[in-house]
Amino acid sequence: MAETAQVREVGPRDGIQMVKTILSAEQKLAWIRKEAAAGVRHFEATSFVPPHVIAQFADAAEVARGALAIEGIEAAVLVPNLKGAQRAFDAGVPKVNYVLSASEAHNMANVRRTTDESIADFRRIIAERNARGLKDRVKVNAAIATAFGCTIQGEVPEKRVVAIAETLAAAGADEISLADTVGYANPAQVRRLFAAVAEVAGGVPLAAHFHDTRGLGLANVSAAVDVGVRRFDASLAGLGGCPFAPGATGNINTEDCVFLLESLGFDTGIDIEKLIAVRAEVEAWLPGERFFGMVARAGLPKTFRRKAAA
Amino acid sequence: MAETAQVREVGPRDGIQMVKTILSAEQKLAWIRKEAAAGVRHFEATSFVPPHVIAQFADAAEVARGALAIEGIEAAVLVPNLKGAQRAFDAGVPKVNYVLSASEAHNMANVRRTTDESIADFRRIIAERNARGLKDRVKVNAAIATAFGCTIQGEVPEKRVVAIAETLAAAGADEISLADTVGYANPAQVRRLFAAVAEVAGGVPLAAHFHDTRGLGLANVSAAVDVGVRRFDASLAGLGGCPFAPGATGNINTEDCVFLLESLGFDTGIDIEKLIAVRAEVEAWLPGERFFGMVARAGLPKTFRRKAAA
Repeated sequence: MAETAQVREVGPRDGIQMVKTILSAEQKLAWIRKEAAAGVRHFEATSFVPPHVIAQFADAAEVARGALAIEGIEAAVLVPNLKGAQRAFDAGVPKVNYVLSASEAHNMANVRRTTDESIADFRRIIAERNARGLKDRVKVNAAIATAFGCTIQGEVPEKRVVAIAETLAAAGADEISLADTVGYANPAQVRRLFAAVAEVAGGVPLAAHFHDTRGLGLANVSAAVDVGVRRFDASLAGLGGCPFAPGATGNINTEDCVFLLESLGFDTGIDIEKLIAVRAEVEAWLPGERFFGMVARAGLPKTFRRKAAA
Repeated sequence: MAETAQVREVGPRDGIQMVKTILSAEQKLAWIRKEAAAGVRHFEATSFVPPHVIAQFADAAEVARGALAIEGIEAAVLVPNLKGAQRAFDAGVPKVNYVLSASEAHNMANVRRTTDESIADFRRIIAERNARGLKDRVKVNAAIATAFGCTIQGEVPEKRVVAIAETLAAAGADEISLADTVGYANPAQVRRLFAAVAEVAGGVPLAAHFHDTRGLGLANVSAAVDVGVRRFDASLAGLGGCPFAPGATGNINTEDCVFLLESLGFDTGIDIEKLIAVRAEVEAWLPGERFFGMVARAGLPKTFRRKAAA
C-alpha cells in the first residue's frame, strides 16, 4: 500500500481570484463535481471575503452550500477575518481556512491590520466556532501567507514565521499551512522552515501552498515531501496569476503536482488523465486566460504506473 | 565562499536541433559570446552529426573553431560516433561529449547500432584521442541518454544504466552524464540512480542533463544536488522541444536553473538579469519558437542575493 498524499484543488478560489471572467455558481460547482469524479477529494471552494472586494466571490454562500451537497469531498472555504468565518459557519462548511500574512506590510495591505491583530482575530474565530458548538464538526485551519518572503517588505524572518505558527497551533488551529504567496521559496528554505515549524506545532498537521511564479513550485513540493509534508494546495492549469508579476503563473499546477507525487510513489487517489479532461472543459469557460502545465501538454510517460481502478 | 555549481548552456546544440530557423554560424557564436559576457563558462557549442542528418549543424566545424576563439569559456561539442569525434579532434575542441542511449530501442533508432556497439565506439574514440597525443588536452565525456526511461521501450533497467556507467568510467570517460532525454525522471529516481552510479564511477565527475517535458526538470535538479551533482546542462528559454511530445518544452531552462542553484546558495558565476537580456536577443532570431521560463517573466525576488560584481 502506497502512502497517501493530499492534493487540494484551490482553483475555484485562488485560481479565479484574478481572472477576467466571472464564473457562475453553477460553473464553479460543475468544476468541483468534475474534479471530484477524477478523484480529487479536497477543495478550497470559495472565499468569504467582503463581496465588494472581489466580485468573483459574491456567490460564496451559494457555492459553499452547493459544494456541501457533493458527495465524497471535503470543501473548505477561505476567510480573511471573523466576519467571513461567521458567514462560513452560517453556510455550514466543514472547514474554514483562515489566512494571515507573516509579512506585516503584506498583512496591512491585505486586511489593514497588523499580524498580531490578525492572530487575535483567529482566536475569536476559534472561540466563535466553539461557542456555536461546532468544535467537532468544523475544522479551522490557519495559513501563513508570505511565509517565504514578501514582494513589499522583502525578507520575512523565519523566526517570526515559526513564532506565528507556534501561536496559531497553541490557539487551536487544526492545520497550519505555509504559503509562498509570491513565489520566493526555494527547496533549501522549504525544508528548513517546515522542519522548524514542525518542531513547535505540537503535532498539528502541516500543509504547503506554493506558487510557481519563478519555476520552483514543484521543486519546493518535492523538498516539502522530504521533511514530511503530505498536504498540498494546487490549482488546475496553474490558474491564479500574481498581481505583482504580470503574465507570471500563480499556484502550482494540479495535474503536474499530482504527477510528481504519484511518480514519487504516493497515492493521491487522483486520475491525471481525467483531470486533464476537466482542464479542457474549464478552459472553455475562461477565454483569454493562460493555462499552464506540462503533463497536459506532453502526456504521461509510458513508464507511469496508472491506477488499477481508473 | 559559496560552493560553485556548473550550468552548461546547450542551447546552440540541443536547443536548436529542432527549431524551424537555421541560424548562421555568426549568430550561434554571437549567442555564445553574449552568454559568456553574462558569466556562462561552459557550452555545448555544436554537434558533429553527419551534415545530412541535421542541417542546423552543417557548420559544426566553423562554430567549433569560432567558439575556441572566445576567451574564458570551455566549448564542448556533441559527437554520436568515432567519425564525429575525429572531426571534433581535427577542429581542435577541448571537450567532446559522446552520447549513447541506455535504451537499446532508442540507440538503434538514433545511431542504428546496439548500445554495446556504441560502447565499443567510445573505446575507439578514447584510443584515437590518445593515439593523437591529445590525452592531456581533450576531455572525452560520456552521456547516457534515456537513463530514466524511454518513449520507445518504456522502462530502462537501472542496473543496465549503472553497468554502462561503470564500463564507460573504466574505459576512460572524463565525466559521465545521465540524461533524461524524454522527461520521464522524478526526484526519487534521480537520487537513487545518481547515487548508484557514483558508487561505480570511481571518482569520475557526474553531470545531469534534464528535460522539463513534464514539469519536473528543476525538482530533478534539486534532487541531483542532494546527492552531490554539481554540473547541469540547460538551454536558454528552455529551447529544445521534444520530437515525441509536440508543443512540450525541451531542456530545462538556463535562467530558471541558475535561479534555483543560486537560491540554494551555490555560486554559478552567472548574472541572471544579463542572461535574460541575451534571451530577448536570441528570441528575435527564432521567430515562431516558444520561449519558456519563469524568472524571465516574473523577475528576481526582492530577497535574491545579487552578485556583488554584477
